Amino acid sequence: MSQQLKYAVFGSGSWATAIVKMLCENLDEVGWYMRSVYTKEHLLKEQHNPSYLSSVEFHLEQLKLSNDINEMAEYADVLIFVVPSAFIHSELQKLTVDITNKTVVSAVKGILPETGMLLGEYFHDSYKIPFENIAVIAGPCHAEEVALERLSYLTISCADQKKAQAIADVLSSDYIKTKTSDDVIGTEYAVMLKNIYAIAAGIAHGLGYGDNFQSVLMSNAIREMKRFIKKMHKMKRNINNSAYLGDLLVTGYSTFSRNRLFGNMIGKGYTVKSAQMEMSMVAEGYYATKSAHILNEKNKKKTRLPIIEAVYDVLYEGKDAKKVFQKLTDKLD
Amino acid sequence: MSQQLKYAVFGSGSWATAIVKMLCENLDEVGWYMRSVYTKEHLLKEQHNPSYLSSVEFHLEQLKLSNDINEMAEYADVLIFVVPSAFIHSELQKLTVDITNKTVVSAVKGILPETGMLLGEYFHDSYKIPFENIAVIAGPCHAEEVALERLSYLTISCADQKKAQAIADVLSSDYIKTKTSDDVIGTEYAVMLKNIYAIAAGIAHGLGYGDNFQSVLMSNAIREMKRFIKKMHKMKRNINNSAYLGDLLVTGYSTFSRNRLFGNMIGKGYTVKSAQMEMSMVAEGYYATKSAHILNEKNKKKTRLPIIEAVYDVLYEGKDAKKVFQKLTDKLD
Repeated sequence: MSQQLKYAVFGSGSWATAIVKMLCENLDEVGWYMRSVYTKEHLLKEQHNPSYLSSVEFHLEQLKLSNDINEMAEYADVLIFVVPSAFIHSELQKLTVDITNKTVVSAVKGILPETGMLLGEYFHDSYKIPFENIAVIAGPCHAEEVALERLSYLTISCADQKKAQAIADVLSSDYIKTKTSDDVIGTEYAVMLKNIYAIAAGIAHGLGYGDNFQSVLMSNAIREMKRFIKKMHKMKRNINNSAYLGDLLVTGYSTFSRNRLFGNMIGKGYTVKSAQMEMSMVAEGYYATKSAHILNEKNKKKTRLPIIEAVYDVLYEGKDAKKVFQKLTDKLD
Repeated sequence: MSQQLKYAVFGSGSWATAIVKMLCENLDEVGWYMRSVYTKEHLLKEQHNPSYLSSVEFHLEQLKLSNDINEMAEYADVLIFVVPSAFIHSELQKLTVDITNKTVVSAVKGILPETGMLLGEYFHDSYKIPFENIAVIAGPCHAEEVALERLSYLTISCADQKKAQAIADVLSSDYIKTKTSDDVIGTEYAVMLKNIYAIAAGIAHGLGYGDNFQSVLMSNAIREMKRFIKKMHKMKRNINNSAYLGDLLVTGYSTFSRNRLFGNMIGKGYTVKSAQMEMSMVAEGYYATKSAHILNEKNKKKTRLPIIEAVYDVLYEGKDAKKVFQKLTDKLD
């Protein structure tokens, strides 16, 4: 049944490209919206994305490419959004088609900075999409390894488990194993929070802390993540499942993570601004840090978030990373 | 008070050397027993261990060195054992001094293969040492980073929390933070199990699995470790604390871990025997795998241990690593 639904991916970064590749293993046609006319032309001419995962060759007969977000939203039954969180608000301003009856899937790695909302909440609020039509794709999954067809695991969360399973089915292949979950909010927060912890890991590395400290940082990070998510949405979940702990680890231990790299530069002495200018990709964790801080400020009874607050102090309060992390070491155990 | 007690370290490997260094930060005199006459002579002449952490310089006036295990056991009030688990049984055969009233600390990373017992249990059984006089030092802590004085965290477990704190105090310094715990058995099992998971991580790496899979493996490993330890000794513990999860991560993600290296060679196609011959250090996880397997076999209701069983099948049943891990991937999520 799921095979008959039309799927479209919105975005053209590395994770979007990886998801299109996964879908192409199972579907005759995959819709793919991208803002850039150049990227679309390049794909049509060279059969690969010019900027991300360019080793992945697509079969053009499988792709329905468009630069028109409304055309693509009209076409698809299942809309998978994979736009950086900082751009999604402005992208969605263009959307005029009624999507009330569509299934919306978030593969966005953060909160919409303009609203402080998760993508799912935002679609529910602004587009009146019922929660059972909102799903989330969580890792742990580097897009680069999907390009290499290295075995990876995904978790698809949806309040409607049948929908979750249908999406899981079209993403599964020889190299992608999937599981489903009903913790939409929790997995979406986990995806966002891990990027903050990756920045923390990067700062620590840049400051010269070693592997012993990194493991203590990650051990504290997963406990902090558990507290944060529990506060936001209390339900029974095993925080050590792949979608939470696994995703934290693959990002926190990756030397390729842009968030970790961003943190590393700051640990090495770059200012936040100069680190941002050096990097051509957006470090999602930068926005996520502010959103997490604000969300916690709104709570009547605040959650103890020493790592997130340390990163916030460095990124937004202009505090010295070395001093902030020295204080942080006393709060970890 | 703790300052007046005499401490001695038994063993001369890298972890033993690191612990002597930590104690030297706080104590006027530290006892150090080593089997090798050569190592002792070298220390006396060159002020450093010839084979492990040789960058660490000791002050001879602080060290009471001996090749006589009984002399050292007589001397010390607190005996810290840091001998590889495969050698400890034969080492202890030499012990004739009565140690019933001493405090015994295990920094051994495994089970005594001859008895299937944790070191603490063994001392309780064979030397009638009461459980409140038995403690465990757990990481996460690479000895090499202690040599570099990089910030590291230790957990000291003892049924008697005052004793745990006293040992924590003499190990603490600018670069060592400590906490105490009353989960002696749990932390000792964690120290042992992490080495099996490090072998698994090494095998996976050797077989060509990538970072996405490694994070899923670690996420499953910590859940498996939780099940195993709960079965062995049920009590309230947070498996995500540094002594469990942190220690697992520092070993599982370390490219220097001899257990991971051992697994990596097997993943790359070495036989178990040839991998062992290539390595000059003992991979503790090799013995731990068999012990964990046997312990689980003894249980009336077995615990689900897919990773440990996969490693066991490769190391002891001569099964093909590639096939075993392919099957394992279906059991993980």
